[in-house]
Amino acid sequence: MVDIVIVGTVGLDDVTTPFGSVREALGGSAVFAAYSASFFAAPGMVAVIGHDFPEQHLQLLSRKSIHLDGIKKEGKNFRWKGKYEFDMNEAKTIDTQLNCLASFDPVLPDSYRKAKYVFLGNLDPSIQRSVLEQIEDPVLVVMDTMNFWISHKKDELLEMIQKCDVFLLNDGEARQLFGTVNLAHAARKALALGPTAVIIKKGEHGALLFTKEKHFSAGGYPLEAIKDPTGCGDCFGGGFIGYLAKTGDTSEKNLRKAVVYGSAIASFNAEDFSLDRLTSLSLPDIEHRVSELREMREF
Amino acid sequence: MVDIVIVGTVGLDDVTTPFGSVREALGGSAVFAAYSASFFAAPGMVAVIGHDFPEQHLQLLSRKSIHLDGIKKEGKNFRWKGKYEFDMNEAKTIDTQLNCLASFDPVLPDSYRKAKYVFLGNLDPSIQRSVLEQIEDPVLVVMDTMNFWISHKKDELLEMIQKCDVFLLNDGEARQLFGTVNLAHAARKALALGPTAVIIKKGEHGALLFTKEKHFSAGGYPLEAIKDPTGCGDCFGGGFIGYLAKTGDTSEKNLRKAVVYGSAIASFNAEDFSLDRLTSLSLPDIEHRVSELREMREF
Repeated sequence: MVDIVIVGTVGLDDVTTPFGSVREALGGSAVFAAYSASFFAAPGMVAVIGHDFPEQHLQLLSRKSIHLDGIKKEGKNFRWKGKYEFDMNEAKTIDTQLNCLASFDPVLPDSYRKAKYVFLGNLDPSIQRSVLEQIEDPVLVVMDTMNFWISHKKDELLEMIQKCDVFLLNDGEARQLFGTVNLAHAARKALALGPTAVIIKKGEHGALLFTKEKHFSAGGYPLEAIKDPTGCGDCFGGGFIGYLAKTGDTSEKNLRKAVVYGSAIASFNAEDFSLDRLTSLSLPDIEHRVSELREMREF
Repeated sequence: MVDIVIVGTVGLDDVTTPFGSVREALGGSAVFAAYSASFFAAPGMVAVIGHDFPEQHLQLLSRKSIHLDGIKKEGKNFRWKGKYEFDMNEAKTIDTQLNCLASFDPVLPDSYRKAKYVFLGNLDPSIQRSVLEQIEDPVLVVMDTMNFWISHKKDELLEMIQKCDVFLLNDGEARQLFGTVNLAHAARKALALGPTAVIIKKGEHGALLFTKEKHFSAGGYPLEAIKDPTGCGDCFGGGFIGYLAKTGDTSEKNLRKAVVYGSAIASFNAEDFSLDRLTSLSLPDIEHRVSELREMREF
């Protein structure tokens, strides 16, 4: 049974950071999110891959009990080439080849349509909408985005924000989308569009969760070895919704815990390239880091 | 009796932010720090002012039971002119007139020399050293600095870091001083120089406290109305050492609480120009904000 429908990209990434580089590595928002969510519940991916997408990547996902029936195969795979400078805060995109993603029109398998949790990962808001419309009766819809869609599909994006329960974006995107440097202001404006909660991801500075009445601040884990931050935002989102699906509790109190679980997985992901750190990760590792995150904010 | 000796600048500031401007407003690291510390204990200021320094500013400090015997008067007062752009993260210095500060050679009154707590506020490290040498038997020495001294007096600064117990700096300065973007690395390098604790101030993102074995992360208060961040770092430092002097407890556990009290006062200070918010602030206001900071990190 599919607990969480996760739509997003499946990519072959060329990534260079000050600590090394990889070529045609497994990546994409749906991959990072689904892998992270799979520590807690059963995700079903909705995505398109090319005929050139390596079979062993699918096996890797399959071994984590990630449902792949919603993955369509056609044409050539989506490719992304990016580079991180010394400060590692933001990827510079060198090249994007949409390929099969350009004409992606998702059709959900019947086994996905009754899922209660939906993660609309970072991709075209019109694809996010199409997926959401095919889910019969969702309990919680979490939606992510990125600066590209703010610049190029702002109207569709704003419409989608109205349809989700939890909206995720990073600090730079929040400032861009709502035209303010003040993150508390930006969060108020986002909440006014309809979501119950807005989460602003701040990379090494942690994450902020805003609801109508409350505010939660989760500190970032003080990593001493960051190799590649690619996918950390997607890992955060996948871990977040995975924890909620596992516990079946969408109270504000439990959203806070889910933010911390998401942060923990994201911090691990930055320790190595592609999914290399996640594939050696266990639930006890995650629990241990959550307890460190708990201890480090105690006073 | 002087509980805390505080050395730093006393300035007349011209400040422009997107939300207004002030001219010849009361400022300077010793002023913000001493005013903040005075909510908890009796600070004694060490500073130099000019003959043109307005008497009513001294009365303002005096009414908060701040000792002023360590303030020398000569020549023309120190003046700073700065501007904040829309992002409010860092002041751009337009003009600095050192005036009487250029030849400042502090001599501490006898009543200061037995103080147990010392705050070496942001100014020339050779003045910081001179003050510290005049204190008989300090229990805790907290030292602040800024990028100017990292660029211009790095050797003296490094020497002073070895003599303090708690070293404060902001994130940009930490990266600059230790040649790394990784704040956890920078903190390790700072601790290796000798201090028991290193605090990295991150503005709206809060503050990190590193000791040899532990790490504490305090979230920033989500201010919706920031008018002028001038002096926030000094307020943090003054509130931090004030709380420690009041409680007489320098354990790691209590350092964490002191960080939160410092953060609370700094967040109030940003709400208005000069000392305008601090002068209407009460200890219950501070306690209330500390309880908000406690609630917002609970999970």
